[in-house]
Amino acid sequence: MVAKILSINSGSSSLKFKLYLMPAEVVVASGQVERIGQAKAHFTMKTEAGKVDEDVQAKSHDQAVSLVIDQLLARQVIKEMTEISGVGHRVSNGGAYYSQAVVIDELVEQRIDELSALSPLHNPVNLLGIRAFKKLLPQAMQVAVFDTAFNATIPQANALYAIPYDYYEKYGIRKYGFHGPSHQYITEQVQERFPTMSHKIISCHLGSGASISAIKDGQTIDNSMGFTPLAGLMMGTRSGDLDPQILPFLQEHEGLDIQEIKNLLNAKSGLLGVSGYSNDIRDLEKAQKEGHQRAALALAMFIHRIQTYIGAYAAELNGVETIVFTAGIGEHDSYIRSKIMQQFAYLGVRIDETQNQANELVISQRDSAINVLVIPTDEEIMIARDTYQHFSY
Amino acid sequence: MVAKILSINSGSSSLKFKLYLMPAEVVVASGQVERIGQAKAHFTMKTEAGKVDEDVQAKSHDQAVSLVIDQLLARQVIKEMTEISGVGHRVSNGGAYYSQAVVIDELVEQRIDELSALSPLHNPVNLLGIRAFKKLLPQAMQVAVFDTAFNATIPQANALYAIPYDYYEKYGIRKYGFHGPSHQYITEQVQERFPTMSHKIISCHLGSGASISAIKDGQTIDNSMGFTPLAGLMMGTRSGDLDPQILPFLQEHEGLDIQEIKNLLNAKSGLLGVSGYSNDIRDLEKAQKEGHQRAALALAMFIHRIQTYIGAYAAELNGVETIVFTAGIGEHDSYIRSKIMQQFAYLGVRIDETQNQANELVISQRDSAINVLVIPTDEEIMIARDTYQHFSY
Repeated sequence: MVAKILSINSGSSSLKFKLYLMPAEVVVASGQVERIGQAKAHFTMKTEAGKVDEDVQAKSHDQAVSLVIDQLLARQVIKEMTEISGVGHRVSNGGAYYSQAVVIDELVEQRIDELSALSPLHNPVNLLGIRAFKKLLPQAMQVAVFDTAFNATIPQANALYAIPYDYYEKYGIRKYGFHGPSHQYITEQVQERFPTMSHKIISCHLGSGASISAIKDGQTIDNSMGFTPLAGLMMGTRSGDLDPQILPFLQEHEGLDIQEIKNLLNAKSGLLGVSGYSNDIRDLEKAQKEGHQRAALALAMFIHRIQTYIGAYAAELNGVETIVFTAGIGEHDSYIRSKIMQQFAYLGVRIDETQNQANELVISQRDSAINVLVIPTDEEIMIARDTYQHFSY
Repeated sequence: MVAKILSINSGSSSLKFKLYLMPAEVVVASGQVERIGQAKAHFTMKTEAGKVDEDVQAKSHDQAVSLVIDQLLARQVIKEMTEISGVGHRVSNGGAYYSQAVVIDELVEQRIDELSALSPLHNPVNLLGIRAFKKLLPQAMQVAVFDTAFNATIPQANALYAIPYDYYEKYGIRKYGFHGPSHQYITEQVQERFPTMSHKIISCHLGSGASISAIKDGQTIDNSMGFTPLAGLMMGTRSGDLDPQILPFLQEHEGLDIQEIKNLLNAKSGLLGVSGYSNDIRDLEKAQKEGHQRAALALAMFIHRIQTYIGAYAAELNGVETIVFTAGIGEHDSYIRSKIMQQFAYLGVRIDETQNQANELVISQRDSAINVLVIPTDEEIMIARDTYQHFSY
């Protein structure tokens, strides 16, 4: 069955969309509304007919969704709204409820809302997008695709925290892991292209949010994010792991309340907090070249932590066949990749620097014991696929 | 120069001592006062002449110290107090001030006191011991031997946290690492006994407190504990690492204040918190055999985390030559060692199970790519050596 499926990523002030013709996976249109809620919002779209780029009014997610549909109609990408038969929504946290994508009904909405306690920055705005589309496209099937779903196979011994077990039972406090659609896409790509090297994969999703997954025989056994997307690697503005006792220390000595400490760790830490300069790795690399010591320190820390996770996951997998870099930094930053991989001679990794600098698919040498790859991720197609599959039976 | 040196480990309700004849490193007496401050304290001592084991009065650390000296005199281990020319005190945290042992003067005392903010459970009671000995043995040289000192070589990129840099400058928030005397003892043992395999060491100190160190060419480059001894591995009652965002979550949902959250993570978590049964690994292994599921879960988590740290440190060292197990669990628990090492076939580790079960020095097979050792630690001799060296020039 041929169907037009919208893949939606709804953020706090943005709405990204891609319209697919399925099952061919042809992108008919893609774009986003940015600065939702501000005086001037901004709309961009790419279709076969060309590009759109204009200031617009979008005070709410409802208005942003209307705008997208109006534009698709106006540019004749679709002739009527009912042509869109499915909308897939990226949802940050499915908690213990969902280990795969699910058609959204009242109960699903309730649970996404309930899980906002775990993902306060993402689940509520994901829900805004869902509700706006339900109103405007009531005939379309709405599907929730969870960032946590591909991590549902993480074994209990890797997922639980060493705090009283009651808190797991009472609140579901455990590692959920995130970036599921991306790590799943990478896994499937490796399985397709390098089947004999796909049994032990370490997938490094390095963007402004960053996580690493250990994937054994197609199933996630660990992910560096945790109960929330704060844990694990150093990120643009997020601290990642730290001695937990630093929190009460700062609360006591700086008089920070709970909201302030959360804000500190999520929005003022990471590359930005250490460098005091930028949360953007490109800025930091430039500054490092100009002798900015704290930019250099932030980069060294960023690299170091990725190395420790790769090393840890090599142990969890009892070896590794393929290491993949993906997402903004992973796909484009040959300096970071090269620095990270220097530490893995002991596993027989040999990087081809020419291929690395060209961001080629395979950046390891032919005689490297481990395949090191660069694969552009595609979370949107995973959302479209997960949505489309609900039509297939 | 021959000298009698006391090695002291002063805890909240205990005072452990060993009297050495240096430089021969002969133990003349060893023992402890337990339950200091309680109605009935308890004293044990071993000397050449035999064992002492009796209930005593010791309402304070002052009284406990008097008692030890009185007993040494009464049993004729020493003839007069002035025979003891040096007292080495284990001190938990030397912060950024001390990268090696130091003779205690007013300033040192002040700083140990100041650093109680970082090590509230240990530094204050260490200081009680120091002050008691200063009073009773004013002629003896008092030396502070810091748990953090052997970790002072951890590079900044491994030691800093990804929070605003200001907090490092303002409070010295960084990784200090602990168990320094133990990891240093292990390092020196490996250097002496297996010099060609001593360039890349992973030292696993597994007791009710537990930490792992990565040691390159004799210098610590990382330790799993952090700003405080809470971080890193799962321990008897300590959580070790967790998604930092769990803390504000619990504070909000359980209404815990700062003291309660610290108490929760330090005293109610770890093996005890997960199993709901015991903080003692021997109890848990027994319970696991009898089908206790949460005991089995706690053990699996304990093992898993040690594996991830060994894997991470193998990456930090770019390979590993020797892995050492030490301290209570590390020295005596062949089951835990065997389980941990199963995950390292990819590094060429081959365990000899017969030797492992006998707690022998070398538990790896001859053809193992990595030396795996069991070495009983000796923190007391490190304290005595560090103290004695101040007499040597």
